[in-house]
Amino acid sequence: MLLHTIKEVQEQVKQWKKEGLSVGLVPTMGALHNGHLSLIKKSVEMCDRTVVSVFVNPIQFCPGEDLDKYPRTLEQDTKLCEQANVDIVFAPTPAQMYGENQMRTNDFLTYVIPPFFYVNKLCGKSRIGHFDGVCTVVNKLFNIVQPDFAFFGEKDAQQLAIIKKMVKDLNIPVEIISCPIVREESGLALSSRNKYLSQEDKIHALALSKILNNIKSCYKKGITNTSALKETAYGFLNEHHELEYLEFTDNTTLEPVESATDNTRVFIACKVGGVRLIDNIFLG
Amino acid sequence: MLLHTIKEVQEQVKQWKKEGLSVGLVPTMGALHNGHLSLIKKSVEMCDRTVVSVFVNPIQFCPGEDLDKYPRTLEQDTKLCEQANVDIVFAPTPAQMYGENQMRTNDFLTYVIPPFFYVNKLCGKSRIGHFDGVCTVVNKLFNIVQPDFAFFGEKDAQQLAIIKKMVKDLNIPVEIISCPIVREESGLALSSRNKYLSQEDKIHALALSKILNNIKSCYKKGITNTSALKETAYGFLNEHHELEYLEFTDNTTLEPVESATDNTRVFIACKVGGVRLIDNIFLG
Repeated sequence: MLLHTIKEVQEQVKQWKKEGLSVGLVPTMGALHNGHLSLIKKSVEMCDRTVVSVFVNPIQFCPGEDLDKYPRTLEQDTKLCEQANVDIVFAPTPAQMYGENQMRTNDFLTYVIPPFFYVNKLCGKSRIGHFDGVCTVVNKLFNIVQPDFAFFGEKDAQQLAIIKKMVKDLNIPVEIISCPIVREESGLALSSRNKYLSQEDKIHALALSKILNNIKSCYKKGITNTSALKETAYGFLNEHHELEYLEFTDNTTLEPVESATDNTRVFIACKVGGVRLIDNIFLG
Repeated sequence: MLLHTIKEVQEQVKQWKKEGLSVGLVPTMGALHNGHLSLIKKSVEMCDRTVVSVFVNPIQFCPGEDLDKYPRTLEQDTKLCEQANVDIVFAPTPAQMYGENQMRTNDFLTYVIPPFFYVNKLCGKSRIGHFDGVCTVVNKLFNIVQPDFAFFGEKDAQQLAIIKKMVKDLNIPVEIISCPIVREESGLALSSRNKYLSQEDKIHALALSKILNNIKSCYKKGITNTSALKETAYGFLNEHHELEYLEFTDNTTLEPVESATDNTRVFIACKVGGVRLIDNIFLG
């Protein structure tokens, strides 16, 4: 069932709650791929009812980012959700979520702001305000859908850590379920932004997963010094890559680590043919 | 029933929800007086079950404010709540609400931040960060108690406007019920901070309600120019008063108005004997 208004979703969810049914939420920006579908599948397995939100959230895009050209494929997304036994596809307009008047800055809108310590690193460093927009919209979706479980991919591991922290800090009665990264056979992590890549760039994009896998191999062989582990990346990079960061942090707190452990996650962001790609790997 | 942990409250509320009972929440900082009791009475009337939270929220006090000396009278508060047929008094410790490690700044804690336009005026001007702390704790309490209704006094009218805005912006499934200011026969608005006033200061404190009543009379006689209405205040002020602000705003948006209307609220803050008091009146 495709719904566009908050009110319709609230009414349907209220009915489910009355019947004692459990509800799962998979928040997405659409352009669904097998990564999303793995989250959806998990929710359909675990919960009596599943809601997939499809909303390209304007307040999580920074000036100069790809808000306008971000892929929008609602018809196909809805079809995929139906095939996956999703109960509601919730696809609101920006006006439905934030009102008509376009005043979406923190001058006029209540924001949910994640801690600076979780934001001043990795993607947060270049995407100023991005995670404020993410936390605010996820909070709104949680309040609208009131899910028992919400499903997020490890692909966006900083986002996942920030959302878990938000849920804990604000006592939000939702259990966060994280799902592993889904990759092409080549190793490329699935992403809606892969659509921007040329055939040639897709080959250059393999550097990200290769770097991460190589680091994990080196770690398993006993190298724990993160500076040394970082050095191993450069063999995979050439003039087609614009490395933004390659960082090692604690998996939960995102605290940078100098010596890798089984609780370390390695994050990489790199532009390939002008397309910003991210990937990560857990060393444990 | 006096409960100190989040978990106990969640379990009790879960049970009520299963039984289909409606829940009212009255958030307080304790030191209950007849103002609070009017909110409690309203909740007990309207809802099947009522939770009163008693929590002196450290993150809504600014440096130099009265966090340490704020009156704490839990035993008496609990007695008053029992007499009023409250079902749960929820009195958590700061550690229960924010964790043991005392890292309560926005470096380490997720905050709910009201819009700057609602905060850069009235009490928000001198109490930097106050409403961030209020919105964050109210959001937490809403998530813990999951009330159908929450009750707030018009005494803190800026707070009320900000919380209504938060509920709207974040789609929080709670209905906010506002209750009129309760006053002593003298006209003094009830406040937990009145306990700080000497007998003599209590008389000087009457200036606040006198100023507001006089402004309303003048408005009813046809004076709408707010500069002219402000002028009428000075006859009530003397060396015992330290006026912080006297402002006219739209009741919902808190937008300053130059010409008073039936939708205008007048706000006053004034120190008397070193004690900061606030009051307000609706002109409609």
